[in-house]
Amino acid sequence: MEQSLSVITLGVADVEAARAFYVDGLGWEATLVVPDDVVFLQIGHGMLLALWNAEHMTAEAGPIMDTRGSSASAPITLGHNVASAQTVDDVLRVAEEAGSPLVHYGEHREWGGYSGYFTDLDGYRWEIVHNPGLRVEPDGRVVFGG
Amino acid sequence: MEQSLSVITLGVADVEAARAFYVDGLGWEATLVVPDDVVFLQIGHGMLLALWNAEHMTAEAGPIMDTRGSSASAPITLGHNVASAQTVDDVLRVAEEAGSPLVHYGEHREWGGYSGYFTDLDGYRWEIVHNPGLRVEPDGRVVFGG
Repeated sequence: MEQSLSVITLGVADVEAARAFYVDGLGWEATLVVPDDVVFLQIGHGMLLALWNAEHMTAEAGPIMDTRGSSASAPITLGHNVASAQTVDDVLRVAEEAGSPLVHYGEHREWGGYSGYFTDLDGYRWEIVHNPGLRVEPDGRVVFGG
Repeated sequence: MEQSLSVITLGVADVEAARAFYVDGLGWEATLVVPDDVVFLQIGHGMLLALWNAEHMTAEAGPIMDTRGSSASAPITLGHNVASAQTVDDVLRVAEEAGSPLVHYGEHREWGGYSGYFTDLDGYRWEIVHNPGLRVEPDGRVVFGG
């Protein structure tokens, strides 16, 4: 199996509300919108985020956990790396204004970086990170340290 | 907020077992291994998958759902696109041999493609997909149709 990810799909309770959060709230552009079914957004080189009607997802993929009604958030984190600690809090402010139900502003972390969290309307957690120990080479390879 | 994803982090019950599944089972290479804490694997242009000790994740990010003990799988899908329907089932066979607890071999889908699923040891679902209606341009942009 090739070492690659092409699409990450989140099951969402209300596709239009999810679209509005990402597109109107965060200012992103959709690549494809199928009303009441799915929205695709490009989030990297050859990489898509899909916001899929949770009922349709369950019909194809089998039972999934209910994130929206739970007091715990989904056991994944979507990481968004930025160039400075100031930008971490700037992005979190945008998410808060976009209607994020849970925002933890940035903290200095023991591993040397600065990060905070927000969740989207369905409880999917994004970590906004400034990590001075991680860099991306021109060819896209990620390098830790130095 | 820039429209990008840098890291996707999965909370895992046993970091060494998760490493073994991805590295020994699927044949992937780790970028960084911190024993009993976290394993990073490159899964795209400037993109990492992190397998993080679920207790450590909870300590930093707050309560998360327990995927491993649940009968439902995590409400996300990690998509892996391949060039043919045959490759879909070939990859699913590799995942089965690697110890995946749940494998659904490929089916023709109403949207015109062919896909199947496997879950990793913690219940995170990968969809292996042949989608003839989706292509990646040389610059990494994803295009639907034609």
